[in-house]
Amino acid sequence: MSFQKLDELGHKLEALEHALAILGADEATHMAVGGGEKRADAMSMLAGMLHRQSTAPEIADWIGAAEQEDLNDDQKIAVTEFRRHYTNLTCLPVEFVERQTRARLRCEQLWRDLRAKNDWTSFKPALEGIVTLVREEAALRAEALGLDPYDAMMEQYDPGNRAADITPVFDELKIFLKDFVPKALAVQEQRSAKRPLKPLSGVYPIERQRDLGLAMMSAVGFDMTHGSLAVSHHPFCGGVPTDVRITTRYRTSDFLSALMGVLHETGHALYEQNLPHEWGHWPVGKARGMAVHESQSLFVEKQLGRNPAFWRWALPVVEKHLGEDWSIDDILPHVHHVGRGLIRVDADEVTYPLHVILRYELEREFVAGRLEVADLPEAWDAKMREYLGLPTIDNPADGPMQDVHWASAAFGYFPSYTLGAMMAAQQWAAFEKSHPSANEDIAKGDFAAVNEWRRANIWSQGSRWSTPELLERATGDKLDARYFTEHLTRRYGGE
Amino acid sequence: MSFQKLDELGHKLEALEHALAILGADEATHMAVGGGEKRADAMSMLAGMLHRQSTAPEIADWIGAAEQEDLNDDQKIAVTEFRRHYTNLTCLPVEFVERQTRARLRCEQLWRDLRAKNDWTSFKPALEGIVTLVREEAALRAEALGLDPYDAMMEQYDPGNRAADITPVFDELKIFLKDFVPKALAVQEQRSAKRPLKPLSGVYPIERQRDLGLAMMSAVGFDMTHGSLAVSHHPFCGGVPTDVRITTRYRTSDFLSALMGVLHETGHALYEQNLPHEWGHWPVGKARGMAVHESQSLFVEKQLGRNPAFWRWALPVVEKHLGEDWSIDDILPHVHHVGRGLIRVDADEVTYPLHVILRYELEREFVAGRLEVADLPEAWDAKMREYLGLPTIDNPADGPMQDVHWASAAFGYFPSYTLGAMMAAQQWAAFEKSHPSANEDIAKGDFAAVNEWRRANIWSQGSRWSTPELLERATGDKLDARYFTEHLTRRYGGE
Repeated sequence: MSFQKLDELGHKLEALEHALAILGADEATHMAVGGGEKRADAMSMLAGMLHRQSTAPEIADWIGAAEQEDLNDDQKIAVTEFRRHYTNLTCLPVEFVERQTRARLRCEQLWRDLRAKNDWTSFKPALEGIVTLVREEAALRAEALGLDPYDAMMEQYDPGNRAADITPVFDELKIFLKDFVPKALAVQEQRSAKRPLKPLSGVYPIERQRDLGLAMMSAVGFDMTHGSLAVSHHPFCGGVPTDVRITTRYRTSDFLSALMGVLHETGHALYEQNLPHEWGHWPVGKARGMAVHESQSLFVEKQLGRNPAFWRWALPVVEKHLGEDWSIDDILPHVHHVGRGLIRVDADEVTYPLHVILRYELEREFVAGRLEVADLPEAWDAKMREYLGLPTIDNPADGPMQDVHWASAAFGYFPSYTLGAMMAAQQWAAFEKSHPSANEDIAKGDFAAVNEWRRANIWSQGSRWSTPELLERATGDKLDARYFTEHLTRRYGGE
Repeated sequence: MSFQKLDELGHKLEALEHALAILGADEATHMAVGGGEKRADAMSMLAGMLHRQSTAPEIADWIGAAEQEDLNDDQKIAVTEFRRHYTNLTCLPVEFVERQTRARLRCEQLWRDLRAKNDWTSFKPALEGIVTLVREEAALRAEALGLDPYDAMMEQYDPGNRAADITPVFDELKIFLKDFVPKALAVQEQRSAKRPLKPLSGVYPIERQRDLGLAMMSAVGFDMTHGSLAVSHHPFCGGVPTDVRITTRYRTSDFLSALMGVLHETGHALYEQNLPHEWGHWPVGKARGMAVHESQSLFVEKQLGRNPAFWRWALPVVEKHLGEDWSIDDILPHVHHVGRGLIRVDADEVTYPLHVILRYELEREFVAGRLEVADLPEAWDAKMREYLGLPTIDNPADGPMQDVHWASAAFGYFPSYTLGAMMAAQQWAAFEKSHPSANEDIAKGDFAAVNEWRRANIWSQGSRWSTPELLERATGDKLDARYFTEHLTRRYGGE
């Protein structure tokens, strides 16, 4: 029975994925510094084994045969998702993958070096090479998937997302934010004129911050028997669903940044921990994609963790661990701080989408062949001025060289960040509609209902549905910017 | 070129070994408790891949062809060791391996349960099944390797060790120790009558003990850029040569036990860290075997770490970390404590070999078919009385049920422990002969010369030579109990 063959293959692939996931998390947390070279050798060898075993030609036959077998509905969905996954994995010729991998690794190395030197001129030819390859990749994927080129690129990260659906939503959000950002800044200014910002100054030992993070993780639903918290240079969520490794980094002068990192990664972790275990070795049992994953991390960080109701419960927890006796009016201005800046990763939830929309618009132009690397700095700058009102700068390291994504040939990825933010707001709205005491629950530190809602509607669904289908089934509505703009208006728009 | 094929295969196998080693260390140190089942699935799947890829039939052809190729001496030795390794891996039929693996896993499970219940009667039939399988295994290995059955079993752990060579050495040691143990106990008693034992009492926070351990590891040569120290239930040395993971466990009331654990595992780690890296993916680049590995751990723990000269240097280091101001006469009676007891793993370096020789003699009888499980308790008891002067007990959990080795079908392993202890003493003697200031160096915390000697004579040799050849090349002498008995006499025999 071919379904059985796919099932057995899944167990083999899962073992290699397990090894790669744990080795990857270990590398960033516990590996000795001198272990990196051998670790890289081992991981690339294992990744090669995984790729070869995932793309073996006979799998196509097994999928085809399994589609003819007498399967129940869950099994049929699993086979369909297996085919989608396999097609995406195998739609590029090996010759192209090798050529692109070389160019990508080289461009990433250059990026690390030249970004630090702010040297756009030397970086430009490498990025031009990447853009040429990305256009080739998009054409190959488009051909294999029967999609528009940019949609075919997005399909790797968020199956089912289409530019034709996203663009009007992003346009609506952009129009809103161009107007709203100055408004939110004015509201913030008026507030701090009335009540000056109280710095959250103090020295917070790492052990106490860690205990605070563990208490918060556990309270919002992280299963401590199936995961752990460690330290790494950049926070991440890794490992496997039965053993999710999340990390943060600490500064003794600032507890909020580490704590928000913990909450963000806990959001990713809850998704992983609550995926349908019985399908863990099938593509259908995996998380849906980058946007949905980001919706889960942002749900915990932004919808819960920056919700004023959350802080009614959280402040005493913070006080217990750090010994500080702040009022809600002391803490919220920090939790809700808004600022215009050049750097995406430093942006708050109000300005962040404009950074993403800028990149989304530019990368669509790149893929379509309507923009060349030579014209990127000017195009970037024009949009920065238009969307965020930021003055022209002559500093590419803080402009188009700030992200690694394009150097890595990851075109089609950026929209996921803001789609995730919008989907999180839309999920919270749907939950609140079905559960009117949502905020009161949160204020009591009771996350049972909100987690139950997400378990039923998001987590347990794995990859049964495309990204837009999953959202619509969960919330009863297609992606709509209104939920997010209303969320921002409530939180940042003044009374 | 077939040599090249073996080289490429080596890189693949090394990646899987790397994954298994890190996953194994991670399991005991950082894994979430609920991650065990999936980890076991992943590791057994990866172990299966490793075994299949290590034993593929075409490898025999590559080895045969490589042996005909124009290779330099190092390459020839590497191919020879590859053949030896491959022959040992492939000499059992798959049917037998599967049958034995099932019996072994079952017997280990029973052992964990029944040892705790002290239930020999229920354990007996399972062990009888194992003994039958071990006899079958020994016959199969003997046939494939052209060795005596027990030698063929030992060959898995210590290539080249033969009962005909070991038995007279063990006999000499046994005769010495039967006489020496009471003498050492009497010396100890006289000493403590003159100067009562001062307890090393105090409360030693784990963080301070850990820092002390790190300082000691580093001082005796552990490369902190290629390894780390963590906590686990039982101390071990795992990981890979570029990232060696050692562990210990702490009790706040007793720093010496954790510290000695650190030194022991550091001895294993030094061997791993200093193996010939360029051959790391070949069998010839791996550690020689269990006895040589144990000689390295015991070298650091016993020859260095319990050497009075060592404590002249170490006491101030301990004082710095733990704040205790002991004299050398306070600490040495603890470091050199001798006691007769039933349990091998609790034994000191004087009594330990008698525990091993007892097992060695019994397991040779088992393999030869001259002893049956039904007669084991009586045979065990008779030797315990004869060798250690311990009274008859009716407590199998502290008798023949105390070790997991036989339940695991690991017959031929026990001698490695005492061979390691003897080889460590012989190595120290050889080093001291070539470097008469050995003890003065140690007393200054200068381990450069002793590590250089071991690097040249042991570590860098990997698996180029059989166990006895390696010892003879390093020390200029065949295995000789005299070095060990002289070591014990100096340390425990009184003035």
